[in-house]
Amino acid sequence: MAGLPTPNWLTEIHQDAGSAFSLQTVKLLAEVQSPFQLVQVFETTDWGNFMIIDGCTMVSTRDNFLYHEMMTHPALFGHANPQHVAIIGGGDCGTLREVLRHPDIKSVTQIDIDEQVTIMARQYFPELCESNDDPRATLLFDDGIQWMKDVAPESLDIIIVDSTDPIGPGEGLFNRAFYQSCLAALKPGGVLVQQSESPLLHVDLLCQMRQAMSDAGFGALQTLQFPQPIYPSGWWSCTHAVKGTEFAEPRWQDAQNRPFDSLYYSEQTHQGAMALPPYLLKAFAAE
Amino acid sequence: MAGLPTPNWLTEIHQDAGSAFSLQTVKLLAEVQSPFQLVQVFETTDWGNFMIIDGCTMVSTRDNFLYHEMMTHPALFGHANPQHVAIIGGGDCGTLREVLRHPDIKSVTQIDIDEQVTIMARQYFPELCESNDDPRATLLFDDGIQWMKDVAPESLDIIIVDSTDPIGPGEGLFNRAFYQSCLAALKPGGVLVQQSESPLLHVDLLCQMRQAMSDAGFGALQTLQFPQPIYPSGWWSCTHAVKGTEFAEPRWQDAQNRPFDSLYYSEQTHQGAMALPPYLLKAFAAE
Repeated sequence: MAGLPTPNWLTEIHQDAGSAFSLQTVKLLAEVQSPFQLVQVFETTDWGNFMIIDGCTMVSTRDNFLYHEMMTHPALFGHANPQHVAIIGGGDCGTLREVLRHPDIKSVTQIDIDEQVTIMARQYFPELCESNDDPRATLLFDDGIQWMKDVAPESLDIIIVDSTDPIGPGEGLFNRAFYQSCLAALKPGGVLVQQSESPLLHVDLLCQMRQAMSDAGFGALQTLQFPQPIYPSGWWSCTHAVKGTEFAEPRWQDAQNRPFDSLYYSEQTHQGAMALPPYLLKAFAAE
Repeated sequence: MAGLPTPNWLTEIHQDAGSAFSLQTVKLLAEVQSPFQLVQVFETTDWGNFMIIDGCTMVSTRDNFLYHEMMTHPALFGHANPQHVAIIGGGDCGTLREVLRHPDIKSVTQIDIDEQVTIMARQYFPELCESNDDPRATLLFDDGIQWMKDVAPESLDIIIVDSTDPIGPGEGLFNRAFYQSCLAALKPGGVLVQQSESPLLHVDLLCQMRQAMSDAGFGALQTLQFPQPIYPSGWWSCTHAVKGTEFAEPRWQDAQNRPFDSLYYSEQTHQGAMALPPYLLKAFAAE
């Protein structure tokens, strides 16, 4: 063991955790400073292409299926009849693709602040963008916080917040004011889904998010866990919040008979993701 | 993002995966070259103490509960009446401690080649060693492969192989000859448990291990997944192999009423760990 050789290695240091993760690169494929952020894509030796925004790990070809499948299918099969979906962030379009695998979905609106991310995703992650031209999809490049304030009340079944971390540009997506906009935009029984960081490293943040969701008026919460190797600790989560007093029973039969292939998602891994470790349940019980 | 600053960072490069993981250190606490290997313990900024053997990540104070609980409790609750257990490797004694939490266990024999690991674990991971002096425990420092050849036939209920990777000193623990010794040592219905690397990075190895277990005569296999942040990809697995035609139904009621606290393990996370992603099931089906 030693410090990393700097050439050909890209390292993200997780300052608050005293850890770091690195991928070995072959070359820089593209680098664009947009009005919002620096977007870079590298070719790696073993993880396919790798997108970084302002130095933060976003997505790799090799392991994004974990995140994208688990940010979408549990929420969609957890709702009785989802038809209208909004995605805040999600500019790589992988979440959009997964949502559109569900044949009963009627509309998906994706609102990412930065078109540059999608432009580069189309070029370097074309498989994630294969549903961008689906007639049910609308891609907007705009401020998601404002969009959520303005959208028609009770017009959405599912809102998926697929954003950067709560520090920096994504910060406004992790507070009570934003959650109140989401609550107003959801139909009764509607579900908000948000990536909620590492179950090992970010327990305090997770508890704060959940508290803010409750304070905004969501009636029940469910955090799910799944692997995500390129993110801090390799272990990630999303949190579901329902407009109502409790979640519907997931449509397990539909999940089992899903009319699409998935790599990580199944009705079993969905149930597995809902099984939280005792230490986390204890932290949530103290909320 | 950049190459890591070398001072105060310890990095393990996963050559076969093009990735690396680093922890920020405060200082080296101890370093001993034993007759078998170089054993080092560092104090880290956020992960407690951290043991490295021949440059390979072994155990941290912060996250070892994931590995130790999941290497033990699913197998023990998955057996109808486990009484006699052997641990091959496991010199940090964390696996031993978890096994001894089960009140019906009558004997546990731990066989690690290198006493130096246990000497340093006692000093720097005392919580893992708190059951070393349990009258049911026997700690041997010897060759586990030979021990398994020599042990009385049908004398064990559970064998836990808590070893280093299949490259290097641990290599002889991942082949058919060793598995045949294990099979002979197990009573009917007995279970072999072995750490089986990353479900993302080491699928080929996992399939080879499973094939070798089948070839040795084990009648059914079950791979379980769980998070393990300091190991490659942060996602790890163990594989159970049963002497018999099928696994017993786990003792879910006993798991639920377990007379000890656990941080990650519960009957729900046990079930969750058994839920494997479709891509892995497909790889196993092609075995």
